[in-house]
Amino acid sequence: MNLKSIKNKTGPFVHTVFFWLKNPTHTSDRKAFEKAIRKLIETNPQAISNHLGCPAESEKRDVVDNSFTYCYVMIFPDEASQNAYQTDSTHLKFIEEASHLWDRVLVYDSLSINN
Amino acid sequence: MNLKSIKNKTGPFVHTVFFWLKNPTHTSDRKAFEKAIRKLIETNPQAISNHLGCPAESEKRDVVDNSFTYCYVMIFPDEASQNAYQTDSTHLKFIEEASHLWDRVLVYDSLSINN
Repeated sequence: MNLKSIKNKTGPFVHTVFFWLKNPTHTSDRKAFEKAIRKLIETNPQAISNHLGCPAESEKRDVVDNSFTYCYVMIFPDEASQNAYQTDSTHLKFIEEASHLWDRVLVYDSLSINN
Repeated sequence: MNLKSIKNKTGPFVHTVFFWLKNPTHTSDRKAFEKAIRKLIETNPQAISNHLGCPAESEKRDVVDNSFTYCYVMIFPDEASQNAYQTDSTHLKFIEEASHLWDRVLVYDSLSINN
């Protein structure tokens, strides 16, 4: 199988973050979180693509975890970019502005094997 | 803030699946899994983008879970496409060919709030 034929692959480094807010039903907390993360999306220089979402109304299945408040996916061109992001001022500013709003964060870092 | 200005958003519906293989160190099991999932990527008609990866060598932090064997991200244009995928023949074929290889599957479905 020619790996180069695999269609539209979603970037080499996928950094997926799930946030559980302390007060997920409080509109003011949600607005503050969304304002901070949208600023991050608009200003961060390392990510080449971003997704910000909430749990979809998927069919309820045992393997689906829809307990999170927000899902944030960042695509980086390589590991070096993700490492640079960790200490980038836009990332640190986001943490400063929003970390008091969340109770739990869970991160998965996946490097493409289709290169 | 003009939401339309948010750069390069990664699609409306992000379906993220983590697989923990029964025998993650067995080359034959990994090859069989990768063959089956690559066939899914190449033949599935609903997803508009795909990422197949393994845990990145991220800096070890408490919030990072790098215990999975494979990460598979599918981007769908909308919820209806993801629902159609659940019963699509390419998906059922993949499960038939590879489900005996995994011990655990965890799914997160996220719908963009940037539309």
